[in-house]
Amino acid sequence: MDIATIVGILLGFMVITTAIVAGGGWQIFIHLPSMAITIGGMLCATLIHFSLPQFLGIFLVVKKTIVAKIPSQSELIQKMVNYAAINRRDGALALEQEIPKISDLFFARGLQMLVDGQNSEAIRELMSLEIQNLQERHSTGKKILEFMGSAAPAFGMIGTLIGLIQMLRNLDSPEAIGGGMAVALITTFYGALSANLIFLPLAGKLGIYSKAETTAKEMIVEGICSIASGENPTIVREKLQAFVSQNRREEVKANI
Amino acid sequence: MDIATIVGILLGFMVITTAIVAGGGWQIFIHLPSMAITIGGMLCATLIHFSLPQFLGIFLVVKKTIVAKIPSQSELIQKMVNYAAINRRDGALALEQEIPKISDLFFARGLQMLVDGQNSEAIRELMSLEIQNLQERHSTGKKILEFMGSAAPAFGMIGTLIGLIQMLRNLDSPEAIGGGMAVALITTFYGALSANLIFLPLAGKLGIYSKAETTAKEMIVEGICSIASGENPTIVREKLQAFVSQNRREEVKANI
Amino acid sequence: MDIATIVGILLGFMVITTAIVAGGGWQIFIHLPSMAITIGGMLCATLIHFSLPQFLGIFLVVKKTIVAKIPSQSELIQKMVNYAAINRRDGALALEQEIPKISDLFFARGLQMLVDGQNSEAIRELMSLEIQNLQERHSTGKKILEFMGSAAPAFGMIGTLIGLIQMLRNLDSPEAIGGGMAVALITTFYGALSANLIFLPLAGKLGIYSKAETTAKEMIVEGICSIASGENPTIVREKLQAFVSQNRREEVKANI
Amino acid sequence: MDIATIVGILLGFMVITTAIVAGGGWQIFIHLPSMAITIGGMLCATLIHFSLPQFLGIFLVVKKTIVAKIPSQSELIQKMVNYAAINRRDGALALEQEIPKISDLFFARGLQMLVDGQNSEAIRELMSLEIQNLQERHSTGKKILEFMGSAAPAFGMIGTLIGLIQMLRNLDSPEAIGGGMAVALITTFYGALSANLIFLPLAGKLGIYSKAETTAKEMIVEGICSIASGENPTIVREKLQAFVSQNRREEVKANI
Amino acid sequence: MDIATIVGILLGFMVITTAIVAGGGWQIFIHLPSMAITIGGMLCATLIHFSLPQFLGIFLVVKKTIVAKIPSQSELIQKMVNYAAINRRDGALALEQEIPKISDLFFARGLQMLVDGQNSEAIRELMSLEIQNLQERHSTGKKILEFMGSAAPAFGMIGTLIGLIQMLRNLDSPEAIGGGMAVALITTFYGALSANLIFLPLAGKLGIYSKAETTAKEMIVEGICSIASGENPTIVREKLQAFVSQNRREEVKANI
Repeated sequence: MDIATIVGILLGFMVITTAIVAGGGWQIFIHLPSMAITIGGMLCATLIHFSLPQFLGIFLVVKKTIVAKIPSQSELIQKMVNYAAINRRDGALALEQEIPKISDLFFARGLQMLVDGQNSEAIRELMSLEIQNLQERHSTGKKILEFMGSAAPAFGMIGTLIGLIQMLRNLDSPEAIGGGMAVALITTFYGALSANLIFLPLAGKLGIYSKAETTAKEMIVEGICSIASGENPTIVREKLQAFVSQNRREEVKANI
Repeated sequence: MDIATIVGILLGFMVITTAIVAGGGWQIFIHLPSMAITIGGMLCATLIHFSLPQFLGIFLVVKKTIVAKIPSQSELIQKMVNYAAINRRDGALALEQEIPKISDLFFARGLQMLVDGQNSEAIRELMSLEIQNLQERHSTGKKILEFMGSAAPAFGMIGTLIGLIQMLRNLDSPEAIGGGMAVALITTFYGALSANLIFLPLAGKLGIYSKAETTAKEMIVEGICSIASGENPTIVREKLQAFVSQNRREEVKANI
Repeated sequence: MDIATIVGILLGFMVITTAIVAGGGWQIFIHLPSMAITIGGMLCATLIHFSLPQFLGIFLVVKKTIVAKIPSQSELIQKMVNYAAINRRDGALALEQEIPKISDLFFARGLQMLVDGQNSEAIRELMSLEIQNLQERHSTGKKILEFMGSAAPAFGMIGTLIGLIQMLRNLDSPEAIGGGMAVALITTFYGALSANLIFLPLAGKLGIYSKAETTAKEMIVEGICSIASGENPTIVREKLQAFVSQNRREEVKANI
Repeated sequence: MDIATIVGILLGFMVITTAIVAGGGWQIFIHLPSMAITIGGMLCATLIHFSLPQFLGIFLVVKKTIVAKIPSQSELIQKMVNYAAINRRDGALALEQEIPKISDLFFARGLQMLVDGQNSEAIRELMSLEIQNLQERHSTGKKILEFMGSAAPAFGMIGTLIGLIQMLRNLDSPEAIGGGMAVALITTFYGALSANLIFLPLAGKLGIYSKAETTAKEMIVEGICSIASGENPTIVREKLQAFVSQNRREEVKANI
Repeated sequence: MDIATIVGILLGFMVITTAIVAGGGWQIFIHLPSMAITIGGMLCATLIHFSLPQFLGIFLVVKKTIVAKIPSQSELIQKMVNYAAINRRDGALALEQEIPKISDLFFARGLQMLVDGQNSEAIRELMSLEIQNLQERHSTGKKILEFMGSAAPAFGMIGTLIGLIQMLRNLDSPEAIGGGMAVALITTFYGALSANLIFLPLAGKLGIYSKAETTAKEMIVEGICSIASGENPTIVREKLQAFVSQNRREEVKANI
């Protein structure tokens, strides 16, 4: 997932940069005051819209979207089937030594509850609440990015209006017309580029990522609850395969 | 919450003001007739759209959004657990002396009903109705701000049209072109700035604030009803922690 | 309710008129052919969209919105409590002499059914159907006004296009440029002004008015059915107060 | 219903034509290549979006909207009450001679099923399925018209872009500027006019027509099923009056 | 279905090409750097928004939309009725020799399950899950095309901004104005054309195709389950005809 995001952003900037450099005079496109109006104004509006913790949290969520790894569904099913077999053979306590091997904290906490002998209802309730919290965090992150994607072009247009009005004031000195128009259009350019290449696509990716991570966590809950109910490995595998789309099911079967 | 709103608005105006002053000729950006068209027209449209009490009430709601304090969730749980302990030890009447210490009127009224011996069903029904009324007031406030955020750019554009038509009338006197265009664009500037830096972000903040205050009030209802049913402090604490998101639960536990 | 609508429209036109007169050359803003394109085109599109009875009915609904009086909630509760007392003391027939004193036809018809000895179920069913019809009429009115609010700017733009094309035809006679541009922009001005100061805010007010009138009529139904079931005045009052928002309940109590 | 549609379209074109002729040079507004770009492009996009049968069917649906007659609700109730009386007096077979007098095929088929002795459940199921099919056809027609209403301005803008680019190529021959700009703006004019005077209002009318025809057909189903269950004419009339809005009920009563 | 799509796209490009060639100077409309900005930028944004497998899968889905054949409903009913007759006469095993004759893999797999003796519940559950997966793939494809349809004009506008800024830089060399404006407007032209002639109509066609294919697959599931329950050919035919719209039912009947 991360590769598509990074490649998309880098390629996108390469395409735009090439077009700018090829046309000559790239220096005019780097204009710090214009960037301050567009990005600064957009960040202020975002700060007013959201609470401070939400505003500060978005950067972590975005970073996580790029670096996080969705666990492979076939690996997950494989692990769960193994745990179900251990549970049936040696009892739940034998699973304790598996916990340190799991890197996903959510998975590890669920297995710990299983080892502690909690029943499947209690495990499901607590873990479902955590999934709900996760979805809400992701949904807030999506809303912030979407708001940024609508605020950036708006402040780009505000910057353009400021530049136009300043230019019109000096209409009798024609040599200043070019400069004024440049400030004007560069803020609109910054707003349109940041919204369409960064904020709106990232908001979309967050939605897709949220769905994939939610499905993975729901598979973990289903698997651990199934093991906690003492079901045999075959039933655990069948239950988890219901989450896998038909065209990927063959490769999952091949791996098991 | 208030800090983000105030900082956002102040910083936003600083960014815009700096851009205007740096470009020279800031005086042209302060134009009272343009402000009258944009803000006056927008307020008139808002007055037509909403009823007079709704129109007058919005300023109180906005002010409350900026100055109000969402009670800390851990403090709330702490207090409720204490009251549950007092109730179990000394009976509901012993809670009467706690009421004057509570600054939140909603909380105080709930506790008074508990002291008066009303059963948990009656308390829940009355307090839920108040929460519903609160949500509706907030939702109306949000709608008014959103309408303002769409009406301000519209009247900015109407002002721009007036200015352009007046300028075109005098097309043979070229020295007047600059002035006419200035009025024209300044109303659009006022409309875009007020909508994107004030009305739309404040409408968003009202939604987030409404959700936080509703959750706090629902915790109060849950807690008081739990005490009224004679439940012990441990169960009261567990019930209220269900409202706290997972990643904040540790700090809440630490405080209790 | 009417006052806000009327004041809003008058003030709005005053603001716009002042801006036009202050800029000089107000005569150019009164241009009957432009008005014919914008308002005429918009009315034709509305006629195509809706049926003839709906189209003709909208003016009555708008007029009613401005002149109608929402009955005061505290007066309504007061009256219902009185009727409940009369019903308990002297029987339903004693209410017959109260009917001519009621100006609201809906209320009078409900009371007549009560006097005729119909049971509360039959009264509720028939009156609820009438409330539903009322809501549908209001909702159609709202849709027509919203369509007008989107069609007026569209025909304003069409008029502007006609003016621009006619001006471009005579590009070699520069003295005609100003006149052509004037027609062009004045239709856009008419479209934007009528949509944002009249049609869209009135559509909003219709929604708010519809909600208030529906609530009042639901209170009447609830009250009459409560009386028809022979409930005592205290219960009738409590049932109706559930419709009143918390912060207005004190004044209602004070009046009873 | 048809009258409003036809009058609206004719009056709309009269208003626009008058404005064009009054401004002089109407010949420039009739430009076949521009029409080919706007209408041709829009039709091609519609062909890509929808399937061939849907695309070809829309013209029939539009034609039907203009020429079709919604049966009068009071006539319908009158007929049903008569049939109910005949059914009670002479049995269902006596209704057979009424079928050829009915022009509405849907009504005739329903009555035939009644004469054939099918029970009310079977009649309701089959006729409801036909109503559902009718609604889906109308809904597809509405979607096609709405898509045309959004595609026409888009291809108008594409035509304008082509004209502008061609004009800019010859910027050194100023006498060609007027002609290029004319093509440019005339496609936008065609797109805006066809969308706002034809496609979007017709889509709206289709929705209103669909609702009226559905209600009429539901009244037929209700009436025939009521007769099939052997209910007496009074009950049939009461059941059908529930479909009539309160303010029209008096005239219906007067006619029966 | 494929014919409408292909004819629409070809005719659309013919209309646009004719308009361009007729106006002279068609060479200016083929500009590779502008195409790189518009299409390249749009593809990068799509890559950021969606995951890599989703991005790569869209081309297969689009291709399938154009070349795929929706099985004829009357043929499908005919086949099912035959299979039902074979099943009743010779038992489910006799159907095994029919499987290789079926080109639709989904249909063949369903029949195989029937031959394997699985009960109708198990067949319905598994095949419904596959239909759900199919719908989700189609829905993702629709979302990607819709995003492309909104991103292409956005990057067209970004390209226009770059061209305008570069032109304004050289405002003192008037001979370069035409060239700069050409780049500017050609990216907008590419964005508007690709969105309105390709991406948005194809997204719509995908929705219509998805509905038709889903209905066909639901008919297959219904038919196989009906056969698996041992129902006779007449009932199988009646059940499947419920999927066929009324006005097509006659031709289906004629064929059986």
